Amino acid sequence: MAFRVYLSGEIHSDWRQRIIDACKAKQVEVEFVSPNTDHESSDAAGDCLGAETQNFWRDHKSAKVNAIRIQTAIQSCDLAIIRFGNKYKQWNAAFDAGFCAALGKPYLTLHDEELIHALKEVDAAANGWATTPEQIVEILDYTLR
Amino acid sequence: MAFRVYLSGEIHSDWRQRIIDACKAKQVEVEFVSPNTDHESSDAAGDCLGAETQNFWRDHKSAKVNAIRIQTAIQSCDLAIIRFGNKYKQWNAAFDAGFCAALGKPYLTLHDEELIHALKEVDAAANGWATTPEQIVEILDYTLR
Amino acid sequence: MAFRVYLSGEIHSDWRQRIIDACKAKQVEVEFVSPNTDHESSDAAGDCLGAETQNFWRDHKSAKVNAIRIQTAIQSCDLAIIRFGNKYKQWNAAFDAGFCAALGKPYLTLHDEELIHALKEVDAAANGWATTPEQIVEILDYTLR
Amino acid sequence: MAFRVYLSGEIHSDWRQRIIDACKAKQVEVEFVSPNTDHESSDAAGDCLGAETQNFWRDHKSAKVNAIRIQTAIQSCDLAIIRFGNKYKQWNAAFDAGFCAALGKPYLTLHDEELIHALKEVDAAANGWATTPEQIVEILDYTLR
Amino acid sequence: MAFRVYLSGEIHSDWRQRIIDACKAKQVEVEFVSPNTDHESSDAAGDCLGAETQNFWRDHKSAKVNAIRIQTAIQSCDLAIIRFGNKYKQWNAAFDAGFCAALGKPYLTLHDEELIHALKEVDAAANGWATTPEQIVEILDYTLR
Amino acid sequence: MAFRVYLSGEIHSDWRQRIIDACKAKQVEVEFVSPNTDHESSDAAGDCLGAETQNFWRDHKSAKVNAIRIQTAIQSCDLAIIRFGNKYKQWNAAFDAGFCAALGKPYLTLHDEELIHALKEVDAAANGWATTPEQIVEILDYTLR
Amino acid sequence: MAFRVYLSGEIHSDWRQRIIDACKAKQVEVEFVSPNTDHESSDAAGDCLGAETQNFWRDHKSAKVNAIRIQTAIQSCDLAIIRFGNKYKQWNAAFDAGFCAALGKPYLTLHDEELIHALKEVDAAANGWATTPEQIVEILDYTLR
Amino acid sequence: MAFRVYLSGEIHSDWRQRIIDACKAKQVEVEFVSPNTDHESSDAAGDCLGAETQNFWRDHKSAKVNAIRIQTAIQSCDLAIIRFGNKYKQWNAAFDAGFCAALGKPYLTLHDEELIHALKEVDAAANGWATTPEQIVEILDYTLR
Repeated sequence: MAFRVYLSGEIHSDWRQRIIDACKAKQVEVEFVSPNTDHESSDAAGDCLGAETQNFWRDHKSAKVNAIRIQTAIQSCDLAIIRFGNKYKQWNAAFDAGFCAALGKPYLTLHDEELIHALKEVDAAANGWATTPEQIVEILDYTLR
Repeated sequence: MAFRVYLSGEIHSDWRQRIIDACKAKQVEVEFVSPNTDHESSDAAGDCLGAETQNFWRDHKSAKVNAIRIQTAIQSCDLAIIRFGNKYKQWNAAFDAGFCAALGKPYLTLHDEELIHALKEVDAAANGWATTPEQIVEILDYTLR
Repeated sequence: MAFRVYLSGEIHSDWRQRIIDACKAKQVEVEFVSPNTDHESSDAAGDCLGAETQNFWRDHKSAKVNAIRIQTAIQSCDLAIIRFGNKYKQWNAAFDAGFCAALGKPYLTLHDEELIHALKEVDAAANGWATTPEQIVEILDYTLR
Repeated sequence: MAFRVYLSGEIHSDWRQRIIDACKAKQVEVEFVSPNTDHESSDAAGDCLGAETQNFWRDHKSAKVNAIRIQTAIQSCDLAIIRFGNKYKQWNAAFDAGFCAALGKPYLTLHDEELIHALKEVDAAANGWATTPEQIVEILDYTLR
Repeated sequence: MAFRVYLSGEIHSDWRQRIIDACKAKQVEVEFVSPNTDHESSDAAGDCLGAETQNFWRDHKSAKVNAIRIQTAIQSCDLAIIRFGNKYKQWNAAFDAGFCAALGKPYLTLHDEELIHALKEVDAAANGWATTPEQIVEILDYTLR
Repeated sequence: MAFRVYLSGEIHSDWRQRIIDACKAKQVEVEFVSPNTDHESSDAAGDCLGAETQNFWRDHKSAKVNAIRIQTAIQSCDLAIIRFGNKYKQWNAAFDAGFCAALGKPYLTLHDEELIHALKEVDAAANGWATTPEQIVEILDYTLR
Repeated sequence: MAFRVYLSGEIHSDWRQRIIDACKAKQVEVEFVSPNTDHESSDAAGDCLGAETQNFWRDHKSAKVNAIRIQTAIQSCDLAIIRFGNKYKQWNAAFDAGFCAALGKPYLTLHDEELIHALKEVDAAANGWATTPEQIVEILDYTLR
Repeated sequence: MAFRVYLSGEIHSDWRQRIIDACKAKQVEVEFVSPNTDHESSDAAGDCLGAETQNFWRDHKSAKVNAIRIQTAIQSCDLAIIRFGNKYKQWNAAFDAGFCAALGKPYLTLHDEELIHALKEVDAAANGWATTPEQIVEILDYTLR
């Protein structure tokens, strides 16, 4: 059973790499897809379509260009992992979770205990809540065993 | 053309009432639907199904009970207004936006300029961004004229 | 917000009537729809299309005739209540739950504690688990307040 | 024509292996997918996400983790085989059948004659009812000939 | 429960009127919708869009104009009755049945015993097979009781 | 059978009014919905959300605000009339036609003979092509008779 | 562009083989899928599930077993060819056409001129009408060139 | 991540080839699909199904034959590029854009600045607007990096 996992959310820690590396080590055969996780180039994704003087429109263009990849990732994945770090608002991660829920795509959340209350609606529609990348790997390993 | 508007997001300011009152004053005929906006009873929505000792499960039960109303509201609305205040994380609002986007439901965002960058993905899928309830009313009035 | 509730499952106790009566008493405005709950006429639903000598085909015809009403009820409801009694197998109730889950229709389960383990997959996709009709009424009242 | 078959239901007999072995022997080229059929590890599927003191929540977490695999299996299969043994309630099997029916996925049931009446709604939406794994193999062989 | 029934197929006998009259007599509250059942005006439905010299295109235009009404009827009905007389080919009736099946709309067939073998695929996807309009009325009465 | 018709396209002639008036005169009971047909206020639809210095973004904002009404109109209509005048490019009309086609919504085109070749793909997916508003009225009258 | 074509309808002439052979000769790379075209084994498809004394039920079981293959064929094809011979009623072919139309699957019809009037609704929803297998091959060749 | 791009619109300039060549040069691994871009053979696509004396029907037949390839291209692509040249009406390109929008398929537009106002609705639903094929290549390169 080929299995594609979309890794959505926080870009300022190494959680994606830890999941990918651990799956490789354990020979869990999963294809991972991610949005562009480089902050700077992500913010500049739409610049090639012409410079903007207003922040709103620069952001708008880049967000829509990034959405091309994200849309394909969500529509084609079997499972999404939605990661919330403690610092940032990461509304895009919650947006992706809502998109998955509407499509009936299963997803797991990955966040610390202190975010429980703030994420209760996002967790309520999830297939599970993990606090460490290692738990995610364990579930992937279990799912594909 | 009967028209239903779902008012999603922030519950700590009077933005909903300002929209509802202004529409009434202007005779804009819209049916508004909202989630429960009383913080305390919303957090307690699942308590009638049995007490929980762990916060996670109390939140989980309440979020799922609240989802019954939200689900009907989103599925049956013609337009959603997604409001982000400056203080809170309001991941549920971003979740609703993603849900709307996946269903092809139009939505408008309502937030201050300082949130532009953090909300760029949510705004990118929206039909417009407003900063005041009065702008929302103007668009509703225009849409139904 | 007009609201339609489909009452699925057990037919040998008065749980439906208790919900309907309590909603009326509390002025919770809900439209209830149910399958035919009279055991005998339900089993005979297909007899008017010609007698059958084999049990399988008699059951088959009746189940398909009953499905006309059930299909309309599920497709048009905003919420389903799925009731499992302790005695019978009630696979039709679990079938309805799966049908709701695939359509993204919210549902609540209603069953005793002793059925928790056997119903874990059905409960996992539900918006809540209640043990008494009164709890269901409380949630309907809350949802439509 | 590549063909994927999802084997849902009873885990306490060797029906899956008999189907898989007979297809191999007859060179019927089918890809089979199944839920985790090991009772103990299936019940423990969610334990890696943290221990629970209440049975309901332990079951809840495990059922949702197991649903990841089942969801992919159902969504991607061309045909489901839904097996009901005589002993257990197997509401998850009926739930899977309802899910298939709502998606328009064809399925066959596999159960003894004594369950005919109890399964009439599940059988009514099926593409056929078999009593032995060998009949299932014959239909697969016929379908892919 | 408002209920709409689409009456598809044969136009050369009084089966529609018999169903409508009997429902009225029995106070079965159903809204009936039908295609244009007047052969001549149905064949001429597209003539107002310009005369055609070739039969194929005259038929083509009329069939597409008639499809406007039929499409709304099928999409909005809760149940379709598909009637096959003994004389004609009535491929449009079988086409409507296939359309209903793909949408998950329940339908009943109405035809004589001699057509059983020729209609086996159409009957296989139906919720029941009747031979008289009176049986249809009985099922409608039962469904809405 | 309640029937809603969406009138899309050209805004510089009186075709909408001619259809609406003739239906009223003939007592054809149809509910008509249209986009904003006032050129100036349509172009300014987004201005209330803040002035723009670049034409592209002013157009962008207005088009998205106008899309709220159009989206509801298309999703809820039973039939669309897509009108192409001889002068303008009217890509929005062709866009609406493609949107209808993807949703399976029937539509009629209304344009002069000289546009036949340029509109061949749009006409190919239509239920008919008319050259005068009177023909449209005749079809509506026929459809709802 | 991989391309799958479903060949539906008449089983008493060699039209399928003529299309398949000509595509091979012209190196048109298409994957063809068909229902079981052997009359006798098709009628007996359900016999392995138990003998039936009534013709209706024997037909019913076989039609449902055959539907497994047909369902996968229709759902996964890019184009269907629907063939009507002059002799038989072939309601299954018209049923398949309606099913394709509801799913938005393109199809071509293949039939003689004398069937034009009887097939007008089926042709109206088709992407084209051919009278010879060679025309079908020419369109496949053109489509995949 | 395999990625398919549908190149829709203008056929009188070399924009397709420039995109395809530049992707090859940059090793951007994309599968491109296009409609038939040869004007003459495209207009003649339906001629093999029989000659027509009226232009409307010749165009109709050809457009429907061409739609087979276009339908598969749109349904299976991850991204569409919709190109509008300055000269022609290209309503088929706007039709494709509307079709993509309704399906939730991302698309980019490619056109000169002078078409901004006329294309505002088409651009409003797009993920971006480019003026040169090189910008499209840059976005594809970025998306698949």
